[in-house]
Amino acid sequence: MRDTAIAYDEMLSVMGRQMQPNDIRKLTALLGHRDIISLAAGAPSSETFPLEELAEIAARVIRTHGQFALQYGPTRGPQPLIEGIAEMLRGRGIATATPSEVVVTSGSQQGLDLVSRLLIDPGDVAMIELPSYIGGIIALHNAQAEMVGVQQDDGGLIIDDLRQKLAGLLKAGRRVKCIYTIPNFQNPSGVTLAVERREQLIQIADEFDLLIIEDDPYFDLAFTEAARPQPLAALRPERVIYLGSFSKVLAPGLRAAYVCAPAEIAAKVEMAKEGADLSSSVLDQAIVLEALRSGLIEKRLPELRQFYEVRCRAMLNALAEFAHAGARWTRPTGGFFILLELAGKIDATEILMQALDSGVAYVPGQPFFIDGSGANTLRLAYSKETPEKIGEGVARLGRVLQGAQRAEAV
Amino acid sequence: MRDTAIAYDEMLSVMGRQMQPNDIRKLTALLGHRDIISLAAGAPSSETFPLEELAEIAARVIRTHGQFALQYGPTRGPQPLIEGIAEMLRGRGIATATPSEVVVTSGSQQGLDLVSRLLIDPGDVAMIELPSYIGGIIALHNAQAEMVGVQQDDGGLIIDDLRQKLAGLLKAGRRVKCIYTIPNFQNPSGVTLAVERREQLIQIADEFDLLIIEDDPYFDLAFTEAARPQPLAALRPERVIYLGSFSKVLAPGLRAAYVCAPAEIAAKVEMAKEGADLSSSVLDQAIVLEALRSGLIEKRLPELRQFYEVRCRAMLNALAEFAHAGARWTRPTGGFFILLELAGKIDATEILMQALDSGVAYVPGQPFFIDGSGANTLRLAYSKETPEKIGEGVARLGRVLQGAQRAEAV
Repeated sequence: MRDTAIAYDEMLSVMGRQMQPNDIRKLTALLGHRDIISLAAGAPSSETFPLEELAEIAARVIRTHGQFALQYGPTRGPQPLIEGIAEMLRGRGIATATPSEVVVTSGSQQGLDLVSRLLIDPGDVAMIELPSYIGGIIALHNAQAEMVGVQQDDGGLIIDDLRQKLAGLLKAGRRVKCIYTIPNFQNPSGVTLAVERREQLIQIADEFDLLIIEDDPYFDLAFTEAARPQPLAALRPERVIYLGSFSKVLAPGLRAAYVCAPAEIAAKVEMAKEGADLSSSVLDQAIVLEALRSGLIEKRLPELRQFYEVRCRAMLNALAEFAHAGARWTRPTGGFFILLELAGKIDATEILMQALDSGVAYVPGQPFFIDGSGANTLRLAYSKETPEKIGEGVARLGRVLQGAQRAEAV
Repeated sequence: MRDTAIAYDEMLSVMGRQMQPNDIRKLTALLGHRDIISLAAGAPSSETFPLEELAEIAARVIRTHGQFALQYGPTRGPQPLIEGIAEMLRGRGIATATPSEVVVTSGSQQGLDLVSRLLIDPGDVAMIELPSYIGGIIALHNAQAEMVGVQQDDGGLIIDDLRQKLAGLLKAGRRVKCIYTIPNFQNPSGVTLAVERREQLIQIADEFDLLIIEDDPYFDLAFTEAARPQPLAALRPERVIYLGSFSKVLAPGLRAAYVCAPAEIAAKVEMAKEGADLSSSVLDQAIVLEALRSGLIEKRLPELRQFYEVRCRAMLNALAEFAHAGARWTRPTGGFFILLELAGKIDATEILMQALDSGVAYVPGQPFFIDGSGANTLRLAYSKETPEKIGEGVARLGRVLQGAQRAEAV
């Protein structure tokens, strides 16, 4: 027990005082050890981790070059891994990707944090999708950005809305620094930015002199070749800070992701990272390098895509069967998530306890909407449970929604 | 090649623009692959890493519970590791250390970064030792702290100088938030804060309502029991944010360190960490937990202490034999470092190239001094080379210094 009454709150910075616990993390605590079908967790299925291969790689890496893999490493990451990532990104169409543009980070979350700190002074504006990824919102919030939301539809970011809002902000004398977008199979909406809008988005970035933060963790989880559009960074690398990750295609507990940005920006990311953690886990990076080099990652992709596609289809089928009248949902072509929009005035947060009591969990959509909208939406993840359980989970949810709709009608 | 002339610099935040490459990292680049005795590197010897044990643990952890060790983990760290750290800290005399006060971080560097961001608004003052650890300086700099240096002598921080400077700052209406100290076997000076000064430092923190950031990575590397004083956090936990690490006693490539702070502050560190990287490497944490649980860390401490003590003695003996007239140096009782103060006006940066040409590397002291002093100092690390090479390295350095002294006398 600490017994004195020191006013810690008064010692905190603005950032320290403004931070709030994340609603989704609170939900995880709620879930506890209850026997619930979780359509909430936004993580890859741990069934997909290649345990035996990674155990073998980890032991081999430590035994054969542990004096490097367990020592401090370069801030930017080991050179062979940087080269491997640059090569992989050239394969994605980012023709300019060279080692001087790549920095390895501790998950894409660190990339989001460092980039936010590098671009944003308190009060600078960042444009952000409605809805958007909570981790991106937190990083921008911690940098004290003012976030302005841009509407999305089934084709992603609505360009007219973006243009209108940018013009208004410019008129009001605001300094807009960047647009944060998750163009593929977005978290939480599951939508993908339409090809023609990608060109338009680049034009807007040029016109308003903005940078685009392109967060693309699900790139490799497009269900089909056709569903995998070119990254914005492939179209106009000078305007794009591209974030990718090994979390979804290998294992997220290995904190290994990367930023690819114009060399000048990449050098700043490296410097910021030095202050943030000196380097990411050197062991994790050595393991990922081996997995990349040996072809383990590439080899598993078809199987992974199928794994998630089957689950996505199970959820879509169940939604068609069980969702209540008037509800709408997105139809992802990759990734982990479907956004469900409820009919009427049903509040997804209000019925969450009922859903948990009925044995199904989801994440209410509202925290993903920076403008406070989205109370009637909820995020469903098909990444964790089996197709059978997904079907049963959606059926349970359907019953809860029916009950809520009846109650509303009364 | 990126061909447009986008003014990236104008898009950066104040932090982004103010960051500069770290001089010590530049030195590492200089070293390259030259055949040089390095008294520069501040890392533990990779000879000390228990490769076989860690290879076995890594493979076992992945095989037996890889579905957790490779999955996203809790931001604060796995509960059993947090409990293990809290127990270890109670063993160091920090009687209040409970899991609610502990957060696992990606190296102590992340702890320094998060704590700096949580406490400092631009222009807030942080008191800092002269000299101090570069990583701490960078973290505070990135948070836009104004750092005010406090003189040290062989007993560490000079309390009168601290008090005088605090009084002056108070008078000038400045907001002082914290004192950053490395009380044991300091990097770069090797000095240890005297026992009576610890009590006085706590009194000053109470009197001026400040927090103490106590950075204690070398605690377990005290050469003798007598050389291991009580942490400041043991004396007055309410005033202290304590940082410890497994980097020096296990392996720094596993990015596993910890913050122990009043629960209210620890909760904020956790929130800031969520935005910074979601969690540290889950695999690294699982490995460290096993190493802690199995007694591997504890068991190796006597051997590690002896390893570094032998090297420290070799360096002290060589300095007594070879250092030039009028030079002074510190006499550490633990850790990795000795600070050498040169006589006359010899500038340690100016003679570095000569030293490298003579086959010995060190780190010039000036970058460690926030007030720009220390040009005549240099940091010697005895952590990397064998005792024989340390002797030879210091002999080489002695010849360079003699030459410089003769040149100065002319």
